[in-house]
Amino acid sequence: MREIAGGVTAARGFWAGAAAAGIKYAGRDDMALIYSQVPCKAAGTFTSNVVKAAPVKWDKKVVEESPFVQAVVINAGIANACTGQEGMDCCQETAEEAAQVFQIPPSAVLVASTGVIGMQLPMERLRAGIHMLKENKGTDESHGTAAAKAIMTTDTVHKEIAVEFQAGGRTVHMGGMCKGSGMIHPNMCTMLGFVTTDVNISKELLEKAVREDVKDTFNMISVDGDTSTNDTLLVLANGMGENPEIVEENEDYQAFAAALNYVNTWLAKKMAGDGEGATALLEVTMKGCASKEQAVKLAKSVVTSSLVKAAMYGHDANWGRILCAMGYSGASFDPEQVDLYFESKAGRLQIIENGVSTGYSEELATRILSEPEITVVADVKQGEATATAWGCDLTYDYVKINGDYRS
Amino acid sequence: MREIAGGVTAARGFWAGAAAAGIKYAGRDDMALIYSQVPCKAAGTFTSNVVKAAPVKWDKKVVEESPFVQAVVINAGIANACTGQEGMDCCQETAEEAAQVFQIPPSAVLVASTGVIGMQLPMERLRAGIHMLKENKGTDESHGTAAAKAIMTTDTVHKEIAVEFQAGGRTVHMGGMCKGSGMIHPNMCTMLGFVTTDVNISKELLEKAVREDVKDTFNMISVDGDTSTNDTLLVLANGMGENPEIVEENEDYQAFAAALNYVNTWLAKKMAGDGEGATALLEVTMKGCASKEQAVKLAKSVVTSSLVKAAMYGHDANWGRILCAMGYSGASFDPEQVDLYFESKAGRLQIIENGVSTGYSEELATRILSEPEITVVADVKQGEATATAWGCDLTYDYVKINGDYRS
Repeated sequence: MREIAGGVTAARGFWAGAAAAGIKYAGRDDMALIYSQVPCKAAGTFTSNVVKAAPVKWDKKVVEESPFVQAVVINAGIANACTGQEGMDCCQETAEEAAQVFQIPPSAVLVASTGVIGMQLPMERLRAGIHMLKENKGTDESHGTAAAKAIMTTDTVHKEIAVEFQAGGRTVHMGGMCKGSGMIHPNMCTMLGFVTTDVNISKELLEKAVREDVKDTFNMISVDGDTSTNDTLLVLANGMGENPEIVEENEDYQAFAAALNYVNTWLAKKMAGDGEGATALLEVTMKGCASKEQAVKLAKSVVTSSLVKAAMYGHDANWGRILCAMGYSGASFDPEQVDLYFESKAGRLQIIENGVSTGYSEELATRILSEPEITVVADVKQGEATATAWGCDLTYDYVKINGDYRS
Repeated sequence: MREIAGGVTAARGFWAGAAAAGIKYAGRDDMALIYSQVPCKAAGTFTSNVVKAAPVKWDKKVVEESPFVQAVVINAGIANACTGQEGMDCCQETAEEAAQVFQIPPSAVLVASTGVIGMQLPMERLRAGIHMLKENKGTDESHGTAAAKAIMTTDTVHKEIAVEFQAGGRTVHMGGMCKGSGMIHPNMCTMLGFVTTDVNISKELLEKAVREDVKDTFNMISVDGDTSTNDTLLVLANGMGENPEIVEENEDYQAFAAALNYVNTWLAKKMAGDGEGATALLEVTMKGCASKEQAVKLAKSVVTSSLVKAAMYGHDANWGRILCAMGYSGASFDPEQVDLYFESKAGRLQIIENGVSTGYSEELATRILSEPEITVVADVKQGEATATAWGCDLTYDYVKINGDYRS
């Protein structure tokens, strides 16, 4: 496997496009399209929030029931969440309009929305946008980039990546884009992720690979502990790589799963590091855990703690807050067994040993914590399981963005 | 029952005092004493964090095993958490010093600490402080106030209250003080609460009343979801009110429980409203719930959401975030049944009905949310259970206080 240029158009047969439909923003693209020249198998994972946005309900049904999918229509600015029957009707009308424009069945159209909760979508503008998307679409790298930019909300950078790998003696491709800052995400009410691949794989194995991979990638990032109503990851596989169909968990499946993990990890970390107002990416690894479940609970509790995040913003080696967050995670461990390390480009430092301070250099610790990518490693010395979670620091700008957002 | 002046010295036979021991701060009192002229029954509730500070371990043992308690020695500045055996030795030495000074057994001395995690207490200063506390103690209202001020850390106001009520034909008293901003609390690593009363009550019923009351009071406040290593509530009853001992759940017990609820609610709300950096007290009431458990989960999830808290700071009626936080609370409900109201001194407004916007006036909503005390009421229409939680808004100053704290 190797990284290549591009995003969602890197795999054979995928078009992308963007359009300025005036949904909410002025002077920028705010609609995006992913389109496959041939029918795709699709897999998806969606928010666990009880309050599910209309497009989440629509996509769940399409992924579970439709024989194939071929297009994804995305808008930024309005989330179409808490919009009742009118919101569901918008999904239906969007799918019907796209179906007519692209000459495919409405059941082959996925929709995704991100933005403010509680507002209705302006359907006329959305319809006009779909016609523009048809005109603007293309298979170039630049078309993928335009789509990745069109779905941004408070994101400060667009996020896309692509890889190629071997399956059944063929070179196949995978590309992805996403927006937002977490499956557990802030105000924009959404992380949206889209992955396209030309690999030929059975729907069952596609679903299995996605289901297992998100546990270690998108579900391990957090910006503020708020799980959105719209979180969606969609993976489309169109088979145009012409490898023999992957129907069992063989070497080709492993190669596919590895590529998916690479793309998803990259996208997830990029979202965490671009969390609202963030100045640093925080990686938290728990080692020596008795079980994976324990490791996940501990890592997520640390990466979600407002106090840890504020300390990271202050470049303050306030390790008591890390132990404290581990302590209320719900996972059991012996605080007096814990070793803790801080790492970054500036160095690596053991901060506590068996639960008490090593008498480390505060100056070096501050230097380590002043880098834009920081890793915290804790060893609880109970077993072999590990987990890594990603987040970001808590800053003035987070408060500013979220205090001002709607008004 | 009626509110009276004073705090922990309002009940008969209780002394309080403060001293500037130079534990961490300069030019201010940082140690406090509560002392009863006669032995007390004691009840306590402590942090659920796996990482428990040394004084929490000490007090748990004293409350469970000692026949009586008579003194509480408190320090601010250093939490004595994550301090290993040396930290436990500090508790022992503090109790022994106080025992000698006040001529009581060490097992009758409770200790409490609040401040930074991971530092050892300067025992010589602590010892000298205990001698100063002996000199400075008294039964006046001013002595209670001095103690309430000495235990402050990032608190902006000291917090004390007292009431009197009738039991067995006698007028009895209860007073309390606290510091911090939550059982689920920010950086100072602690909410500490102390309640004194001259009521005569059995230890069993004292414990029961405290255990039940904290569920609706201290456990329903949140500043940032970080449960401290030091959280402690101690209630001392010295019986000097001379009412016939309360040994069953009769009218006198109800009067005692009502007074305790009044004092604890007042202290808890005061802490929530004085949350680090807060500009507003946020009260969230869930109505029409199928069970108390569901109501508690929903109310706490809303009051803990960073996005809701940031919206409150921005006076923004961003109700989608409230529904979203209810949605990921872990409690089930039908989003399309929810009614939601905002209330404050400026008015009352229905924001959503059956899960969708009422088309309310944004201007009036902003006016309501610009008050220093805001109430959110949600009705999920599934039953009769209710719960109320308290928190505060999320502000620039929260980030500033917690980004700068240790350094």
